Amino acid sequence: MALTQTQEQEIQDTQTQLYPSRREVSPGLEDVLYDAFPVLDHGFVRVIDYMGNDSAIVQAARVSYGKGTKKKTEDRGLIHYLLRHAHTTPFEMCEIKFHVKLPFFVARQWLRHRTANVNEYSARYSILDKEFYIPSQEHLASQSPTNKQGRGETLSSEYSNYVIAMLRTDAENAYAHYEELLNEDPDGNTLDSYKEGLARELARTNLSLNFYTQMYWKIDLHNLMHFLTLRADSHAQYEIRAYADVMLTLLERWVPFTYEAYIQYRKEAAHFSKNALAVLKKRLKGEEVTQEESGMSKREWQEFSEALDLL
Amino acid sequence: MALTQTQEQEIQDTQTQLYPSRREVSPGLEDVLYDAFPVLDHGFVRVIDYMGNDSAIVQAARVSYGKGTKKKTEDRGLIHYLLRHAHTTPFEMCEIKFHVKLPFFVARQWLRHRTANVNEYSARYSILDKEFYIPSQEHLASQSPTNKQGRGETLSSEYSNYVIAMLRTDAENAYAHYEELLNEDPDGNTLDSYKEGLARELARTNLSLNFYTQMYWKIDLHNLMHFLTLRADSHAQYEIRAYADVMLTLLERWVPFTYEAYIQYRKEAAHFSKNALAVLKKRLKGEEVTQEESGMSKREWQEFSEALDLL
Amino acid sequence: MALTQTQEQEIQDTQTQLYPSRREVSPGLEDVLYDAFPVLDHGFVRVIDYMGNDSAIVQAARVSYGKGTKKKTEDRGLIHYLLRHAHTTPFEMCEIKFHVKLPFFVARQWLRHRTANVNEYSARYSILDKEFYIPSQEHLASQSPTNKQGRGETLSSEYSNYVIAMLRTDAENAYAHYEELLNEDPDGNTLDSYKEGLARELARTNLSLNFYTQMYWKIDLHNLMHFLTLRADSHAQYEIRAYADVMLTLLERWVPFTYEAYIQYRKEAAHFSKNALAVLKKRLKGEEVTQEESGMSKREWQEFSEALDLL
Amino acid sequence: MALTQTQEQEIQDTQTQLYPSRREVSPGLEDVLYDAFPVLDHGFVRVIDYMGNDSAIVQAARVSYGKGTKKKTEDRGLIHYLLRHAHTTPFEMCEIKFHVKLPFFVARQWLRHRTANVNEYSARYSILDKEFYIPSQEHLASQSPTNKQGRGETLSSEYSNYVIAMLRTDAENAYAHYEELLNEDPDGNTLDSYKEGLARELARTNLSLNFYTQMYWKIDLHNLMHFLTLRADSHAQYEIRAYADVMLTLLERWVPFTYEAYIQYRKEAAHFSKNALAVLKKRLKGEEVTQEESGMSKREWQEFSEALDLL
Repeated sequence: MALTQTQEQEIQDTQTQLYPSRREVSPGLEDVLYDAFPVLDHGFVRVIDYMGNDSAIVQAARVSYGKGTKKKTEDRGLIHYLLRHAHTTPFEMCEIKFHVKLPFFVARQWLRHRTANVNEYSARYSILDKEFYIPSQEHLASQSPTNKQGRGETLSSEYSNYVIAMLRTDAENAYAHYEELLNEDPDGNTLDSYKEGLARELARTNLSLNFYTQMYWKIDLHNLMHFLTLRADSHAQYEIRAYADVMLTLLERWVPFTYEAYIQYRKEAAHFSKNALAVLKKRLKGEEVTQEESGMSKREWQEFSEALDLL
Repeated sequence: MALTQTQEQEIQDTQTQLYPSRREVSPGLEDVLYDAFPVLDHGFVRVIDYMGNDSAIVQAARVSYGKGTKKKTEDRGLIHYLLRHAHTTPFEMCEIKFHVKLPFFVARQWLRHRTANVNEYSARYSILDKEFYIPSQEHLASQSPTNKQGRGETLSSEYSNYVIAMLRTDAENAYAHYEELLNEDPDGNTLDSYKEGLARELARTNLSLNFYTQMYWKIDLHNLMHFLTLRADSHAQYEIRAYADVMLTLLERWVPFTYEAYIQYRKEAAHFSKNALAVLKKRLKGEEVTQEESGMSKREWQEFSEALDLL
Repeated sequence: MALTQTQEQEIQDTQTQLYPSRREVSPGLEDVLYDAFPVLDHGFVRVIDYMGNDSAIVQAARVSYGKGTKKKTEDRGLIHYLLRHAHTTPFEMCEIKFHVKLPFFVARQWLRHRTANVNEYSARYSILDKEFYIPSQEHLASQSPTNKQGRGETLSSEYSNYVIAMLRTDAENAYAHYEELLNEDPDGNTLDSYKEGLARELARTNLSLNFYTQMYWKIDLHNLMHFLTLRADSHAQYEIRAYADVMLTLLERWVPFTYEAYIQYRKEAAHFSKNALAVLKKRLKGEEVTQEESGMSKREWQEFSEALDLL
Repeated sequence: MALTQTQEQEIQDTQTQLYPSRREVSPGLEDVLYDAFPVLDHGFVRVIDYMGNDSAIVQAARVSYGKGTKKKTEDRGLIHYLLRHAHTTPFEMCEIKFHVKLPFFVARQWLRHRTANVNEYSARYSILDKEFYIPSQEHLASQSPTNKQGRGETLSSEYSNYVIAMLRTDAENAYAHYEELLNEDPDGNTLDSYKEGLARELARTNLSLNFYTQMYWKIDLHNLMHFLTLRADSHAQYEIRAYADVMLTLLERWVPFTYEAYIQYRKEAAHFSKNALAVLKKRLKGEEVTQEESGMSKREWQEFSEALDLL
């Protein structure tokens, strides 16, 4: 489980207190503020603070003194308009802060997104918990034969048991040695007073990439949508997608109009190249076009046909 | 005056409403949220939203589940420690959003700070108000003979009256022509139905750099302190410093411990070069050092001596 | 004209010298390095330095020790693949530095692009030249009745002469007063030794937004393409588009494979919303769909139909 | 050793070719361009491209048409002036690109620096080499009793042998299992045709943080100096400092005047708080001040005294 009882208690304590504020709120997000949404076997995503809501986007677009428009339908219309025309700066006026627990290898992908603020748990300073990610059977798969950086067929259940056992044993072993090297338990108690302990910044190098770390991560709404477009996508590694999928539901709670526009103009929108567009125009006029004539490669043609249900 | 009655009313409307929220507040900043603090002759700074307070910095530094420490003195101590050692990332976990009215030439300096989000009033889309900056007598000065990019002596009062009259006449004339070119008044009413109007994006090019614009500007606490270090400084142009000085008081309201540490370790701290440090060490041992022996240029020596009250 | 004889000479001097270097070159860009390409009435764009070429993108994508692939066709294929799949980081590995002369109002739009480095001519420190932008007749137009931030019909030639005369007179007047306030000519000679001069940082505030400034501007290839997508676009103001159009030709010289892929997958590609995609699929199956059934607004439907030549 | 024979050959091939270019060069950096400078047991740093030199900084500061100043001494003076007064934008006008081989745990610290471009070797796509970092005896140390995130005493040689053996065995074991899970060798040959292979993106999660990865990393000169200030510092972890120390020597080769100014005004400069400055002033006047009167904590007082050789 992701949380200890003490941590559960700490979260509940923060949730019971209500502060009156002149700042506008997002009712949908307030309902789940501080909640730990579980992801993978030991991870979670929590929203721990936010600034702004759909209305703040409208205010920013208008550089207004008060609340922008009064009618909800006008707000919705303007937000759709802004997203459709890539007027991105008003979306930068909302900000959200997450607390995330995630494996090292997921954190490494995550932190490629540079337009965000981050504070990660320091394993130079503190001792990491004994928590590591072991994929469930259904997520253990072989290398994809077509996509050079993706997964293909799920492993047979027999073999996947073998793999899981190996991963688990290696991680257990790594952590046992980590503790031995530190000569400390996670609470900082010396294990063997006759032995030296290795500095934390060195002992951690023996842990594998499936161990969990934690971070505070803060980002504006525009860049969050960009992150989600890349990470809540079928080309992203399953493990980071699992986080992005939860964050999509939090986006919907936070800024419902923006979410709706995001789905319409980004998430489920399609992009066609110059050549693909030329083929489309001809097709709509009733002309036939073959892949050879299209200027597209076989793979492009395939993707084009799939996107339009032409197969 | 910076605000119309309608605008005053809109601001008051936003201030009377209180929203209960689970988010922590900054009491000092809540008191003045949405207030327009006047700057220069027609400008203002308003805080219109914020995220986090001193406690949020502590939480981020600890990547904690609850509120970080419970004792105020521990929070204060940690914040001082973090700022003293340039651990800047926890300060990025707080965010603030301003509404600023400012002359074009100030906006141009302001927007050199790239790590911020901005939405500026669009003069392609809307008509600018007839508001321009005319320096008061005490701020009209000649070019500094020593600092190639600063001001020196204040102008004589007679000549400054002449200068003010010229600046005012030119701005009045520019705005009159702006309106004529637009063939519209600020409310969008056509002035002369027999005449063509020039596109807004072109008509504005006739306005001078002292006209006022407006923007929403959002920045994290770390980058705000960097901005203030450069702009609430004697080397900054007076007109942008006037804004920065007001923002310093807002910083104190928002995060009082951070403000205290900021004054101690940044604003009123001193920086000595390798050569200056060597001189200091000798001096403290009672040795005399001359400028020639110091390796410092005359100007550096002068600045060094001033910083240490040695003149 | 944009350049003085001295400046022309300085440019020629930099062009005649050849330095042997182990760094790879871009032959197309070398040919025009340092050249001033005229834009508008007094502006220009010059490439003054660059890092990398098409081959550098391939090397970065492969994190290779040597030159990546040897075959040109493989390089081309990989570059197309990368751009098609939005693998943007290898394009960040090339960098280009421009020297640009442009009116203030264009610089203000330009500098909204934050992921770039900039050094602008300082009018606190130096005196601006007497150069301002006056649109030619064909670019003087009325406000667009449909696009709230664009131009519509060209002004009648009679009225445009009046507008041009007014803009010119106002700019001449502003500069005459600028010089008088400074009490200096552009070379720094005092005009009237019995008069005080106003500090440069204040005198400049009397100049209008159509005066020219200059800057060095450096950006990576990925962000340059993003800039060009927004600025070499029919929705951009004509005056900045004039710069972007010249920069597109420089992009083609610098990285021809990337340019080709950019045109194919970005510049002339099309983006369809979720609703538009659903309509497309039905149409391709021979079904009729009306705007009312489509879920699209009238304006969206119009844009959709135009993009596909369906009108 | 860090490089295979093939890699050595690839590097030599890039080094023998000279391209004539109109771009200015940095002779000191040209001499070592593409060279692999060894760091730690298997790592290296290579400069693989650069833009600009000391002269480019001067040109940018002046927004000049030609080469800025002609005299070397003027260039040097201006560069010192700029760095002393924190005029940082001209330093952003130079850019450098590195190829770095480094352990995962070092890469994680490195990539916290967000104002840079990066392309890392993808272990989703490719197979990692069997190379991991084992500290030498002299760098194996216990946790510092005073600095909560640093090292203290070196381990006894007997115990360090035990630690080294444990780290090595665990890494060997992890790699053996990585290969078994992949069912492939580093060249992509199937090991056992009767067995399934696990996807690369999953198999890598079994590797420990001391394994080596590679990246292309590109940064401007201003941000590089900031990186070096933090990482070539006694508070940085030894392993990243080892890279930063090599990069300092490359900085000196690239931009010798800037390097000199950097050492003078940054690297070996000192920063004193408001309280420390007040104490200094009194001391220089011959007054005695105790820690209690100083307003400084014991630890600050200690650091203050050390910085001034007062102990």
